Amino acid sequence: MKPVMTLHELQSFLTDEFPQVMGPDSGFTLDAVGDGSITMKLIAADRHLRPGGTVSGPTLFTLADVSAYVAILAHIGPVALAVTTNMSINFLIKPPPGTLVAKASILKLGKRLAVVEVAISGKADARTVCHAVATYSIPPER
Amino acid sequence: MKPVMTLHELQSFLTDEFPQVMGPDSGFTLDAVGDGSITMKLIAADRHLRPGGTVSGPTLFTLADVSAYVAILAHIGPVALAVTTNMSINFLIKPPPGTLVAKASILKLGKRLAVVEVAISGKADARTVCHAVATYSIPPER
Amino acid sequence: MKPVMTLHELQSFLTDEFPQVMGPDSGFTLDAVGDGSITMKLIAADRHLRPGGTVSGPTLFTLADVSAYVAILAHIGPVALAVTTNMSINFLIKPPPGTLVAKASILKLGKRLAVVEVAISGKADARTVCHAVATYSIPPER
Amino acid sequence: MKPVMTLHELQSFLTDEFPQVMGPDSGFTLDAVGDGSITMKLIAADRHLRPGGTVSGPTLFTLADVSAYVAILAHIGPVALAVTTNMSINFLIKPPPGTLVAKASILKLGKRLAVVEVAISGKADARTVCHAVATYSIPPER
Repeated sequence: MKPVMTLHELQSFLTDEFPQVMGPDSGFTLDAVGDGSITMKLIAADRHLRPGGTVSGPTLFTLADVSAYVAILAHIGPVALAVTTNMSINFLIKPPPGTLVAKASILKLGKRLAVVEVAISGKADARTVCHAVATYSIPPER
Repeated sequence: MKPVMTLHELQSFLTDEFPQVMGPDSGFTLDAVGDGSITMKLIAADRHLRPGGTVSGPTLFTLADVSAYVAILAHIGPVALAVTTNMSINFLIKPPPGTLVAKASILKLGKRLAVVEVAISGKADARTVCHAVATYSIPPER
Repeated sequence: MKPVMTLHELQSFLTDEFPQVMGPDSGFTLDAVGDGSITMKLIAADRHLRPGGTVSGPTLFTLADVSAYVAILAHIGPVALAVTTNMSINFLIKPPPGTLVAKASILKLGKRLAVVEVAISGKADARTVCHAVATYSIPPER
Repeated sequence: MKPVMTLHELQSFLTDEFPQVMGPDSGFTLDAVGDGSITMKLIAADRHLRPGGTVSGPTLFTLADVSAYVAILAHIGPVALAVTTNMSINFLIKPPPGTLVAKASILKLGKRLAVVEVAISGKADARTVCHAVATYSIPPER
Protein backbone atom coordinates (compact mmCIF):
# COMPACT_ATOMS: atom_id res chain seq x y z
CA MET A 1 0.00 0.00 0.00
CA LYS A 2 1.71 3.17 -1.24
CA PRO A 3 1.17 6.64 0.26
CA VAL A 4 -0.12 9.33 -2.10
CA MET A 5 1.23 12.30 -0.11
CA THR A 6 4.82 13.01 0.90
CA LEU A 7 5.93 13.77 4.44
CA HIS A 8 6.28 17.44 3.54
CA GLU A 9 2.84 17.64 1.86
CA LEU A 10 1.25 16.04 4.93
CA GLN A 11 3.03 18.39 7.32
CA SER A 12 1.88 21.46 5.35
CA PHE A 13 -1.70 20.21 5.08
CA LEU A 14 -1.97 19.40 8.78
CA THR A 15 -0.43 22.69 9.93
CA ASP A 16 -2.81 24.67 7.67
CA GLU A 17 -5.98 22.70 8.31
CA PHE A 18 -5.61 21.68 11.96
CA PRO A 19 -3.49 24.41 13.58
CA GLN A 20 -4.87 23.68 17.04
CA VAL A 21 -3.88 19.98 16.84
CA MET A 22 -0.74 20.07 14.69
CA GLY A 23 0.52 23.62 15.08
CA PRO A 24 4.02 24.42 16.36
CA ASP A 25 2.89 24.49 20.02
CA SER A 26 0.80 21.32 19.87
CA GLY A 27 3.57 18.91 20.79
CA PHE A 28 2.59 16.61 17.91
CA THR A 29 5.00 16.10 15.01
CA LEU A 30 4.75 13.84 11.98
CA ASP A 31 8.08 12.05 11.58
CA ALA A 32 7.81 9.45 8.83
CA VAL A 33 5.51 8.11 6.11
CA GLY A 34 5.83 4.52 4.90
CA ASP A 35 3.91 1.93 2.92
CA GLY A 36 0.64 1.61 4.82
CA SER A 37 1.90 3.39 7.91
CA ILE A 38 3.04 6.66 9.45
CA THR A 39 4.97 7.59 12.61
CA MET A 40 4.15 10.53 14.86
CA LYS A 41 5.76 11.88 18.00
CA LEU A 42 4.36 13.65 21.02
CA ILE A 43 6.73 15.87 22.95
CA ALA A 44 4.67 16.10 26.11
CA ALA A 45 4.05 19.52 27.61
CA ASP A 46 2.59 20.18 31.06
CA ARG A 47 -0.99 20.19 29.78
CA HIS A 48 -0.54 16.60 28.50
CA LEU A 49 0.49 15.23 31.89
CA ARG A 50 -1.15 13.81 34.95
CA PRO A 51 0.29 14.48 38.40
CA GLY A 52 3.39 12.27 38.46
CA GLY A 53 4.50 13.32 35.01
CA THR A 54 2.92 10.57 32.91
CA VAL A 55 0.87 11.34 29.82
CA SER A 56 -2.89 11.39 30.49
CA GLY A 57 -5.49 9.05 28.99
CA PRO A 58 -7.16 11.76 26.88
CA THR A 59 -3.75 12.72 25.46
CA LEU A 60 -3.03 9.06 24.52
CA PHE A 61 -6.49 8.89 22.92
CA THR A 62 -5.75 12.07 20.93
CA LEU A 63 -2.35 10.79 19.81
CA ALA A 64 -3.90 7.47 18.67
CA ASP A 65 -6.75 9.22 16.86
CA VAL A 66 -4.56 11.81 15.11
CA SER A 67 -2.01 9.16 14.06
CA ALA A 68 -4.67 6.87 12.59
CA TYR A 69 -6.30 9.82 10.81
CA VAL A 70 -2.97 10.92 9.30
CA ALA A 71 -2.21 7.35 8.14
CA ILE A 72 -5.49 7.32 6.17
CA LEU A 73 -4.95 10.86 4.83
CA ALA A 74 -1.47 9.85 3.61
CA HIS A 75 -3.02 7.02 1.57
CA ILE A 76 -6.22 8.60 0.20
CA GLY A 77 -5.07 12.22 -0.10
CA PRO A 78 -6.67 15.41 1.22
CA VAL A 79 -9.88 14.97 -0.78
CA ALA A 80 -12.16 13.62 1.91
CA LEU A 81 -12.32 13.86 5.65
CA ALA A 82 -12.49 10.51 7.38
CA VAL A 83 -14.58 10.49 10.56
CA THR A 84 -13.81 8.32 13.60
CA THR A 85 -16.67 5.89 14.21
CA ASN A 86 -15.10 3.53 16.77
CA MET A 87 -11.96 3.21 18.82
CA SER A 88 -11.02 0.36 21.11
CA ILE A 89 -8.05 1.47 23.19
CA ASN A 90 -6.01 -0.56 25.68
CA PHE A 91 -3.91 1.17 28.32
CA LEU A 92 -1.17 -1.40 28.94
CA ILE A 93 1.42 0.19 31.19
CA LYS A 94 1.92 3.65 32.64
CA PRO A 95 3.72 5.65 29.96
CA PRO A 96 7.24 6.86 30.75
CA PRO A 97 7.68 10.64 31.09
CA GLY A 98 8.86 12.48 28.01
CA THR A 99 8.47 11.87 24.31
CA LEU A 100 6.07 9.20 23.02
CA VAL A 101 6.20 7.59 19.58
CA ALA A 102 3.05 6.37 17.79
CA LYS A 103 3.14 4.02 14.81
CA ALA A 104 -0.16 3.82 12.90
CA SER A 105 -0.55 0.89 10.46
CA ILE A 106 -3.51 0.52 8.11
CA LEU A 107 -5.26 -2.85 8.49
CA LYS A 108 -7.95 -2.12 5.91
CA LEU A 109 -8.55 0.72 3.46
CA GLY A 110 -11.92 0.16 1.82
CA LYS A 111 -14.14 2.51 -0.12
CA ARG A 112 -16.33 3.22 2.89
CA LEU A 113 -14.38 2.09 5.96
CA ALA A 114 -10.76 2.16 7.05
CA VAL A 115 -9.35 0.28 10.06
CA VAL A 116 -6.05 1.37 11.58
CA GLU A 117 -3.93 -0.08 14.38
CA VAL A 118 -1.81 2.23 16.53
CA ALA A 119 1.00 1.20 18.89
CA ILE A 120 2.39 3.86 21.23
CA SER A 121 5.69 3.41 23.03
CA GLY A 122 8.26 5.52 24.88
CA LYS A 123 11.12 6.97 22.89
CA ALA A 124 13.87 5.05 24.65
CA ASP A 125 11.90 1.93 25.57
CA ALA A 126 10.27 -0.06 22.78
CA ARG A 127 7.56 -1.60 25.00
CA THR A 128 4.05 -0.75 23.84
CA VAL A 129 2.36 1.37 26.53
CA CYS A 130 -0.94 1.89 24.71
CA HIS A 131 -2.54 0.06 21.79
CA ALA A 132 -5.60 1.09 19.81
CA VAL A 133 -7.62 -0.09 16.83
CA ALA A 134 -9.85 2.54 15.24
CA THR A 135 -12.45 2.54 12.46
CA TYR A 136 -13.06 5.54 10.23
CA SER A 137 -15.93 6.22 7.87
CA ILE A 138 -14.82 7.63 4.52
CA PRO A 139 -17.37 9.98 2.91
CA PRO A 140 -18.79 8.82 -0.45
CA GLU A 141 -17.73 11.92 -2.37
CA ARG A 142 -14.04 11.10 -2.47
CA MET B 1 -26.32 -2.01 43.74
CA LYS B 2 -26.27 0.79 46.31
CA PRO B 3 -23.83 3.72 46.26
CA VAL B 4 -21.62 4.17 49.33
CA MET B 5 -20.99 7.90 48.84
CA THR B 6 -23.53 10.71 48.59
CA LEU B 7 -23.64 13.27 45.80
CA HIS B 8 -22.14 15.86 48.14
CA GLU B 9 -19.33 13.55 49.33
CA LEU B 10 -18.45 12.73 45.73
CA GLN B 11 -18.44 16.37 44.68
CA SER B 12 -16.12 17.32 47.55
CA PHE B 13 -13.77 14.40 46.90
CA LEU B 14 -13.52 15.11 43.18
CA THR B 15 -12.95 18.85 43.60
CA ASP B 16 -10.19 18.22 46.14
CA GLU B 17 -8.45 15.33 44.40
CA PHE B 18 -8.88 16.20 40.73
CA PRO B 19 -9.05 20.01 40.59
CA GLN B 20 -7.86 20.10 36.97
CA VAL B 21 -10.63 17.73 35.83
CA MET B 22 -13.49 18.61 38.17
CA GLY B 23 -12.67 22.13 39.35
CA PRO B 24 -15.09 25.05 38.92
CA ASP B 25 -13.64 25.94 35.47
CA SER B 26 -13.55 22.41 34.11
CA GLY B 27 -17.04 22.39 32.65
CA PHE B 28 -17.75 18.99 34.26
CA THR B 29 -20.39 18.72 36.98
CA LEU B 30 -21.73 15.68 38.83
CA ASP B 31 -25.50 15.91 38.86
CA ALA B 32 -26.96 12.71 40.31
CA VAL B 33 -26.05 9.44 42.02
CA GLY B 34 -28.33 6.41 41.74
CA ASP B 35 -28.29 2.66 42.29
CA GLY B 36 -25.47 1.45 40.04
CA SER B 37 -25.25 4.69 38.08
CA ILE B 38 -24.32 8.37 38.10
CA THR B 39 -25.10 11.31 35.81
CA MET B 40 -22.62 14.01 34.83
CA LYS B 41 -22.91 17.11 32.68
CA LEU B 42 -20.43 18.91 30.46
CA ILE B 43 -21.03 22.59 29.85
CA ALA B 44 -18.82 22.93 26.81
CA ALA B 45 -16.34 25.80 26.70
CA ASP B 46 -14.35 26.88 23.65
CA ARG B 47 -11.49 24.51 24.41
CA HIS B 48 -13.88 21.51 24.21
CA LEU B 49 -15.06 22.36 20.70
CA ARG B 50 -14.03 21.64 17.15
CA PRO B 51 -14.51 24.25 14.43
CA GLY B 52 -18.28 24.23 13.89
CA GLY B 53 -19.06 24.23 17.58
CA THR B 54 -19.40 20.49 18.23
CA VAL B 55 -17.65 18.80 21.13
CA SER B 56 -14.37 17.14 20.09
CA GLY B 57 -13.57 13.40 20.23
CA PRO B 58 -10.99 13.75 23.02
CA THR B 59 -13.55 15.71 25.09
CA LEU B 60 -16.17 12.96 24.60
CA PHE B 61 -13.52 10.38 25.59
CA THR B 62 -12.72 12.39 28.72
CA LEU B 63 -16.41 12.75 29.65
CA ALA B 64 -16.96 8.99 29.21
CA ASP B 65 -13.84 8.10 31.20
CA VAL B 66 -14.54 10.52 34.07
CA SER B 67 -18.21 9.43 34.28
CA ALA B 68 -17.33 5.73 34.42
CA TYR B 69 -14.63 6.41 37.01
CA VAL B 70 -17.03 8.38 39.20
CA ALA B 71 -19.67 5.61 38.95
CA ILE B 72 -17.14 3.10 40.35
CA LEU B 73 -15.94 5.54 43.02
CA ALA B 74 -19.53 6.10 44.15
CA HIS B 75 -19.94 2.36 44.71
CA ILE B 76 -16.58 1.33 46.24
CA GLY B 77 -15.69 4.54 48.07
CA PRO B 78 -12.53 6.66 47.95
CA VAL B 79 -10.27 3.87 49.21
CA ALA B 80 -8.73 2.74 45.95
CA LEU B 81 -8.06 4.30 42.62
CA ALA B 82 -9.44 2.35 39.69
CA VAL B 83 -7.29 2.48 36.55
CA THR B 84 -8.74 2.46 33.00
CA THR B 85 -7.50 -0.62 31.16
CA ASN B 86 -9.76 -0.58 28.08
CA MET B 87 -12.35 1.62 26.46
CA SER B 88 -14.36 0.85 23.35
CA ILE B 89 -16.05 4.06 22.24
CA ASN B 90 -18.53 4.58 19.40
CA PHE B 91 -19.10 8.04 17.92
CA LEU B 92 -22.66 7.77 16.66
CA ILE B 93 -23.76 11.20 15.53
CA LYS B 94 -22.22 14.65 15.62
CA PRO B 95 -23.01 16.05 19.07
CA PRO B 96 -25.24 19.11 19.22
CA PRO B 97 -23.58 22.31 20.46
CA GLY B 98 -24.02 23.12 24.11
CA THR B 99 -24.43 21.00 27.20
CA LEU B 100 -23.95 17.21 27.07
CA VAL B 101 -25.31 14.72 29.60
CA ALA B 102 -23.51 11.44 30.39
CA LYS B 103 -25.14 8.55 32.21
CA ALA B 104 -22.70 5.91 33.48
CA SER B 105 -24.18 2.53 34.49
CA ILE B 106 -22.16 -0.23 36.15
CA LEU B 107 -22.39 -3.55 34.25
CA LYS B 108 -20.05 -5.43 36.61
CA LEU B 109 -18.34 -4.54 39.87
CA GLY B 110 -15.97 -7.37 40.75
CA LYS B 111 -13.08 -7.52 43.19
CA ARG B 112 -10.53 -6.94 40.46
CA LEU B 113 -12.41 -5.57 37.46
CA ALA B 114 -15.31 -3.19 36.90
CA VAL B 115 -17.11 -2.69 33.58
CA VAL B 116 -19.16 0.46 33.02
CA GLU B 117 -21.38 1.56 30.14
CA VAL B 118 -21.71 5.28 29.34
CA ALA B 119 -24.34 6.89 27.10
CA ILE B 120 -23.85 10.55 26.18
CA SER B 121 -26.66 12.65 24.75
CA GLY B 122 -27.50 16.29 24.17
CA LYS B 123 -29.40 18.09 26.88
CA ALA B 124 -32.51 18.77 24.84
CA ASP B 125 -32.37 15.76 22.55
CA ALA B 126 -32.38 12.29 24.10
CA ARG B 127 -30.63 10.61 21.16
CA THR B 128 -27.35 8.97 22.17
CA VAL B 129 -24.50 10.76 20.36
CA CYS B 130 -21.66 8.71 21.85
CA HIS B 131 -21.61 5.33 23.60
CA ALA B 132 -18.71 3.74 25.46
CA VAL B 133 -17.97 0.63 27.47
CA ALA B 134 -14.90 0.81 29.70
CA THR B 135 -13.03 -1.65 31.91
CA TYR B 136 -11.21 -0.59 35.07
CA SER B 137 -8.70 -2.52 37.14
CA ILE B 138 -9.29 -2.16 40.89
CA PRO B 139 -6.10 -2.36 42.97
CA PRO B 140 -5.90 -5.31 45.40
CA GLU B 141 -5.39 -3.18 48.55
CA ARG B 142 -8.92 -1.88 48.77
CA MET C 1 -37.74 3.87 15.78
CA LYS C 2 -40.49 1.59 14.41
CA PRO C 3 -39.86 -1.94 13.09
CA VAL C 4 -40.86 -2.61 9.47
CA MET C 5 -41.31 -6.39 9.88
CA THR C 6 -43.58 -8.25 12.28
CA LEU C 7 -42.44 -11.01 14.60
CA HIS C 8 -44.00 -13.59 12.30
CA GLU C 9 -42.41 -12.14 9.14
CA LEU C 10 -39.02 -12.15 10.80
CA GLN C 11 -39.39 -15.73 12.03
CA SER C 12 -40.35 -16.94 8.54
CA PHE C 13 -37.51 -15.04 6.86
CA LEU C 14 -34.89 -16.31 9.29
CA THR C 15 -36.02 -19.94 9.13
CA ASP C 16 -35.97 -19.84 5.33
CA GLU C 17 -32.73 -17.93 4.82
CA PHE C 18 -30.62 -19.12 7.74
CA PRO C 19 -31.80 -22.66 8.51
CA GLN C 20 -28.48 -23.65 10.09
CA VAL C 21 -28.61 -20.72 12.54
CA MET C 22 -32.35 -20.30 13.14
CA GLY C 23 -33.81 -23.71 12.27
CA PRO C 24 -35.90 -25.73 14.72
CA ASP C 25 -32.81 -27.50 16.11
CA SER C 26 -30.66 -24.42 16.45
CA GLY C 27 -31.71 -23.53 19.97
CA PHE C 28 -32.26 -19.89 18.92
CA THR C 29 -35.74 -18.40 18.97
CA LEU C 30 -36.95 -14.88 18.25
CA ASP C 31 -39.35 -13.88 20.99
CA ALA C 32 -40.30 -10.23 20.62
CA VAL C 33 -39.93 -7.20 18.37
CA GLY C 34 -40.19 -3.68 19.76
CA ASP C 35 -39.37 -0.11 18.84
CA GLY C 36 -35.64 -0.17 18.13
CA SER C 37 -35.10 -3.56 19.77
CA ILE C 38 -35.71 -7.30 19.60
CA THR C 39 -35.47 -10.14 22.12
CA MET C 40 -34.06 -13.59 21.36
CA LYS C 41 -33.68 -16.72 23.45
CA LEU C 42 -31.11 -19.49 23.42
CA ILE C 43 -32.22 -22.84 24.79
CA ALA C 44 -28.77 -24.30 25.28
CA ALA C 45 -28.06 -27.78 23.95
CA ASP C 46 -24.97 -29.85 24.73
CA ARG C 47 -23.02 -28.42 21.81
CA HIS C 48 -23.41 -24.91 23.24
CA LEU C 49 -21.87 -25.80 26.58
CA ARG C 50 -18.43 -25.95 28.14
CA PRO C 51 -17.58 -28.65 30.68
CA GLY C 52 -19.49 -27.53 33.79
CA GLY C 53 -22.65 -26.75 31.88
CA THR C 54 -22.15 -23.07 31.15
CA VAL C 55 -22.63 -21.61 27.68
CA SER C 56 -19.34 -21.24 25.77
CA GLY C 57 -17.77 -17.97 24.58
CA PRO C 58 -18.34 -18.70 20.86
CA THR C 59 -22.02 -19.43 21.60
CA LEU C 60 -22.39 -16.10 23.44
CA PHE C 61 -20.67 -14.37 20.49
CA THR C 62 -23.09 -16.06 18.07
CA LEU C 63 -26.12 -15.12 20.17
CA ALA C 64 -24.95 -11.48 20.34
CA ASP C 65 -24.22 -11.35 16.60
CA VAL C 66 -27.50 -12.98 15.53
CA SER C 67 -29.54 -10.77 17.88
CA ALA C 68 -27.93 -7.56 16.62
CA TYR C 69 -28.37 -8.67 13.02
CA VAL C 70 -32.05 -9.45 13.56
CA ALA C 71 -32.61 -6.07 15.25
CA ILE C 72 -31.29 -4.31 12.13
CA LEU C 73 -33.25 -6.60 9.79
CA ALA C 74 -36.44 -5.83 11.71
CA HIS C 75 -35.92 -2.11 11.11
CA ILE C 76 -34.62 -1.98 7.52
CA GLY C 77 -36.43 -5.02 6.08
CA PRO C 78 -35.09 -8.02 4.17
CA VAL C 79 -33.74 -5.93 1.29
CA ALA C 80 -30.09 -5.80 2.22
CA LEU C 81 -27.76 -7.96 4.19
CA ALA C 82 -25.87 -6.12 6.88
CA VAL C 83 -22.31 -7.37 7.47
CA THR C 84 -20.63 -7.38 10.89
CA THR C 85 -17.56 -5.14 10.81
CA ASN C 86 -16.71 -4.91 14.52
CA MET C 87 -17.83 -6.40 17.80
CA SER C 88 -16.56 -5.49 21.25
CA ILE C 89 -17.80 -8.13 23.68
CA ASN C 90 -17.43 -8.23 27.47
CA PHE C 91 -17.80 -11.51 29.36
CA LEU C 92 -18.98 -10.29 32.77
CA ILE C 93 -19.92 -13.35 34.82
CA LYS C 94 -20.12 -17.04 34.12
CA PRO C 95 -23.56 -17.62 32.57
CA PRO C 96 -26.02 -19.75 34.51
CA PRO C 97 -26.92 -23.11 32.93
CA GLY C 98 -30.06 -23.22 30.86
CA THR C 99 -31.88 -20.65 28.79
CA LEU C 100 -30.29 -17.28 28.02
CA VAL C 101 -32.16 -14.14 26.95
CA ALA C 102 -30.59 -11.54 24.63
CA LYS C 103 -31.99 -8.05 24.19
CA ALA C 104 -30.59 -6.15 21.19
CA SER C 105 -31.16 -2.38 21.09
CA ILE C 106 -30.24 -0.19 18.12
CA LEU C 107 -27.97 2.73 19.09
CA LYS C 108 -27.65 4.08 15.55
CA LEU C 109 -29.25 3.19 12.24
CA GLY C 110 -27.55 5.21 9.54
CA LYS C 111 -27.49 4.80 5.77
CA ARG C 112 -24.14 3.06 5.84
CA LEU C 113 -23.54 1.94 9.42
CA ALA C 114 -25.66 0.52 12.22
CA VAL C 115 -24.53 0.16 15.85
CA VAL C 116 -26.37 -2.23 18.16
CA GLU C 117 -25.99 -2.97 21.86
CA VAL C 118 -26.78 -6.47 23.17
CA ALA C 119 -27.28 -7.46 26.82
CA ILE C 120 -27.48 -11.20 27.60
CA SER C 121 -28.82 -12.47 30.90
CA GLY C 122 -30.08 -15.71 32.42
CA LYS C 123 -33.78 -16.39 32.22
CA ALA C 124 -34.43 -16.34 35.93
CA ASP C 125 -31.72 -13.89 36.94
CA ALA C 126 -31.77 -10.44 35.42
CA ARG C 127 -28.03 -9.83 35.88
CA THR C 128 -26.21 -9.16 32.62
CA VAL C 129 -23.71 -11.99 32.02
CA CYS C 130 -22.42 -10.78 28.67
CA HIS C 131 -22.58 -7.37 26.96
CA ALA C 132 -21.65 -6.54 23.40
CA VAL C 133 -21.68 -3.55 21.05
CA ALA C 134 -21.47 -4.38 17.35
CA THR C 135 -21.15 -2.34 14.16
CA TYR C 136 -22.66 -3.46 10.86
CA SER C 137 -22.03 -2.15 7.37
CA ILE C 138 -25.21 -1.75 5.33
CA PRO C 139 -24.72 -2.27 1.58
CA PRO C 140 -25.44 0.79 -0.62
CA GLU C 141 -28.09 -0.96 -2.76
CA ARG C 142 -30.81 -1.04 -0.11
CA MET D 1 9.41 -12.57 26.43
CA LYS D 2 10.40 -16.25 26.48
CA PRO D 3 7.86 -19.11 26.36
CA VAL D 4 7.94 -21.57 29.26
CA MET D 5 6.39 -24.51 27.37
CA THR D 6 7.61 -26.15 24.17
CA LEU D 7 5.48 -26.71 21.10
CA HIS D 8 5.19 -30.41 21.99
CA GLU D 9 4.23 -29.73 25.63
CA LEU D 10 1.55 -27.28 24.50
CA GLN D 11 0.15 -29.70 21.92
CA SER D 12 -0.09 -32.51 24.51
CA PHE D 13 -1.69 -30.26 27.13
CA LEU D 14 -4.28 -28.88 24.72
CA THR D 15 -5.23 -32.28 23.29
CA ASP D 16 -5.67 -33.70 26.81
CA GLU D 17 -7.46 -30.76 28.41
CA PHE D 18 -9.54 -29.39 25.53
CA PRO D 19 -10.31 -32.39 23.29
CA GLN D 20 -13.42 -30.73 21.84
CA VAL D 21 -11.48 -27.64 20.76
CA MET D 22 -8.05 -29.05 19.94
CA GLY D 23 -8.70 -32.74 19.24
CA PRO D 24 -7.74 -34.39 15.94
CA ASP D 25 -11.12 -33.58 14.36
CA SER D 26 -11.27 -29.97 15.52
CA GLY D 27 -9.49 -28.46 12.52
CA PHE D 28 -7.24 -26.40 14.85
CA THR D 29 -3.51 -27.10 14.98
CA LEU D 30 -0.75 -25.32 16.88
CA ASP D 31 2.14 -24.76 14.49
CA ALA D 32 4.80 -22.63 16.15
CA VAL D 33 5.79 -21.04 19.46
CA GLY D 34 8.02 -17.95 19.53
CA ASP D 35 9.09 -15.19 21.90
CA GLY D 36 5.82 -13.57 22.95
CA SER D 37 3.78 -15.21 20.19
CA ILE D 38 2.33 -18.43 18.79
CA THR D 39 0.93 -19.45 15.40
CA MET D 40 -2.14 -21.63 14.88
CA LYS D 41 -3.86 -22.95 11.80
CA LEU D 42 -7.47 -23.73 11.04
CA ILE D 43 -8.14 -26.31 8.34
CA ALA D 44 -11.77 -25.39 7.74
CA ALA D 45 -14.34 -28.18 7.65
CA ASP D 46 -17.93 -27.82 6.49
CA ARG D 47 -19.18 -26.89 9.96
CA HIS D 48 -16.84 -23.85 9.98
CA LEU D 49 -18.24 -22.42 6.76
CA ARG D 50 -21.04 -20.13 5.69
CA PRO D 51 -22.86 -20.69 2.42
CA GLY D 52 -20.30 -19.62 -0.20
CA GLY D 53 -17.45 -21.44 1.48
CA THR D 54 -16.03 -18.67 3.66
CA VAL D 55 -15.26 -19.21 7.32
CA SER D 56 -18.06 -17.97 9.60
CA GLY D 57 -17.82 -15.16 12.16
CA PRO D 58 -18.16 -17.48 15.18
CA THR D 59 -15.35 -19.66 13.80
CA LEU D 60 -13.08 -16.60 13.39
CA PHE D 61 -13.97 -15.57 16.96
CA THR D 62 -13.10 -19.07 18.21
CA LEU D 63 -9.78 -19.11 16.32
CA ALA D 64 -8.85 -15.67 17.73
CA ASP D 65 -9.84 -16.68 21.28
CA VAL D 66 -8.05 -20.04 21.23
CA SER D 67 -4.90 -18.51 19.71
CA ALA D 68 -4.73 -15.74 22.30
CA TYR D 69 -5.36 -18.25 25.12
CA VAL D 70 -2.58 -20.54 23.86
CA ALA D 71 -0.15 -17.60 23.60
CA ILE D 72 -0.72 -16.82 27.28
CA LEU D 73 -0.53 -20.49 28.29
CA ALA D 74 2.81 -20.81 26.45
CA HIS D 75 4.24 -17.96 28.55
CA ILE D 76 2.78 -18.63 32.02
CA GLY D 77 2.55 -22.44 31.93
CA PRO D 78 -0.40 -24.74 32.64
CA VAL D 79 -0.77 -23.59 36.24
CA ALA D 80 -3.68 -21.22 35.90
CA LEU D 81 -6.56 -20.86 33.53
CA ALA D 82 -6.87 -17.43 32.00
CA VAL D 83 -10.46 -16.28 31.40
CA THR D 84 -11.50 -14.05 28.47
CA THR D 85 -12.92 -10.80 29.80
CA ASN D 86 -13.09 -8.72 26.59
CA MET D 87 -12.54 -9.11 22.90
CA SER D 88 -12.73 -6.40 20.26
CA ILE D 89 -12.76 -8.09 16.88
CA ASN D 90 -12.70 -6.47 13.41
CA PHE D 91 -13.88 -8.39 10.35
CA LEU D 92 -11.84 -6.74 7.57
CA ILE D 93 -12.41 -8.73 4.41
CA LYS D 94 -14.25 -11.91 3.56
CA PRO D 95 -11.82 -14.75 4.35
CA PRO D 96 -10.63 -16.89 1.43
CA PRO D 97 -11.83 -20.51 1.44
CA GLY D 98 -9.45 -23.07 2.91
CA THR D 99 -6.81 -22.89 5.59
CA LEU D 100 -6.48 -19.81 7.83
CA VAL D 101 -3.39 -18.84 9.81
CA ALA D 102 -3.62 -16.96 13.13
CA LYS D 103 -0.67 -15.22 14.74
CA ALA D 104 -1.21 -14.27 18.40
CA SER D 105 1.23 -11.73 19.90
CA ILE D 106 1.24 -10.79 23.58
CA LEU D 107 0.96 -7.01 24.11
CA LYS D 108 0.95 -7.23 27.92
CA LEU D 109 1.48 -10.05 30.40
CA GLY D 110 0.79 -8.69 33.86
CA LYS D 111 0.07 -10.45 37.14
CA ARG D 112 -3.65 -10.01 36.77
CA LEU D 113 -4.32 -9.14 33.14
CA ALA D 114 -2.94 -10.19 29.79
CA VAL D 115 -3.67 -8.45 26.49
CA VAL D 116 -3.09 -10.30 23.22
CA GLU D 117 -3.37 -9.18 19.58
CA VAL D 118 -4.37 -11.73 16.92
CA ALA D 119 -4.04 -11.29 13.14
CA ILE D 120 -5.74 -13.90 10.93
CA SER D 121 -4.88 -14.27 7.25
CA GLY D 122 -5.33 -16.79 4.45
CA LYS D 123 -2.57 -19.34 3.94
CA ALA D 124 -1.59 -18.15 0.49
CA ASP D 125 -2.47 -14.47 0.86
CA ALA D 126 -0.80 -12.49 3.61
CA ARG D 127 -3.58 -9.88 3.87
CA THR D 128 -5.16 -9.73 7.31
CA VAL D 129 -8.82 -10.80 7.05
CA CYS D 130 -9.67 -10.51 10.74
CA HIS D 131 -7.95 -8.70 13.61
CA ALA D 132 -8.71 -9.01 17.30
CA VAL D 133 -7.43 -7.69 20.61
CA ALA D 134 -8.45 -9.68 23.68
CA THR D 135 -8.03 -9.23 27.42
CA TYR D 136 -7.73 -12.17 29.81
CA SER D 137 -7.98 -12.24 33.59
CA ILE D 138 -5.31 -14.40 35.22
CA PRO D 139 -6.45 -16.01 38.49
CA PRO D 140 -4.51 -14.94 41.61
CA GLU D 141 -3.39 -18.47 42.57
CA ARG D 142 -0.93 -18.92 39.74
